[in-house]
Amino acid sequence: MTRTPAPPPERHRLSIRLVFDDSGMMGPGKAELLERIARCGSIAAAGREMGMSYKRAWMLIETLNAMFREPLVERVRGGPGGGGAELTPAGQEVLALYRAIVAEAEAAGQERLEAMRALLK
Amino acid sequence: MTRTPAPPPERHRLSIRLVFDDSGMMGPGKAELLERIARCGSIAAAGREMGMSYKRAWMLIETLNAMFREPLVERVRGGPGGGGAELTPAGQEVLALYRAIVAEAEAAGQERLEAMRALLK
Repeated sequence: MTRTPAPPPERHRLSIRLVFDDSGMMGPGKAELLERIARCGSIAAAGREMGMSYKRAWMLIETLNAMFREPLVERVRGGPGGGGAELTPAGQEVLALYRAIVAEAEAAGQERLEAMRALLK
Repeated sequence: MTRTPAPPPERHRLSIRLVFDDSGMMGPGKAELLERIARCGSIAAAGREMGMSYKRAWMLIETLNAMFREPLVERVRGGPGGGGAELTPAGQEVLALYRAIVAEAEAAGQERLEAMRALLK
């Protein structure tokens, strides 16, 4: 299992939570969990990398799976360590959309973010 | 003092937190508090509208005032009810920048937000 170092500190960034009326939320924590599951092939390992209990990681995935028409994560059999988990096509799509929304928002807001930063102490 | 009804429910929206490395954060709660202070001219009343204790509202404003070069909120004297509070020009600028960043991000992400919404249950 690969351990990923923490992302490099950025001068400023946007943390975006998508709030869907009555349907739940999708934010940076869930996105990071999905990304790590895709990379390490295990919910437990992904949660561990984020300092999250197995129970908490599972709860977040169950929330996501219940929120969308199709599950975003599913268990897979086999492999050297027994069962694991992977993103479904829907999971990959949701993660890609989320990342794109954040990237577009950062690009669109860059000038105003700089203006606000100039007002900081 | 005017009471403002809760904003109408939206089908989806972006909740954006600006994370400034080492300098703090600016998100929807602080923005709403600033907006309500501008409108009701009182930190206590603004906090009350948000179901927030006076202490908590003050703490948030002190955090904001310490975060920027110039205070965002200042006490004012006089008026029928005695002292109140108002946004400084810096406070008005920060609030306007924040609102513009959110609006731009929503506009930029509209298509992808719709695509994600289509995947919801």
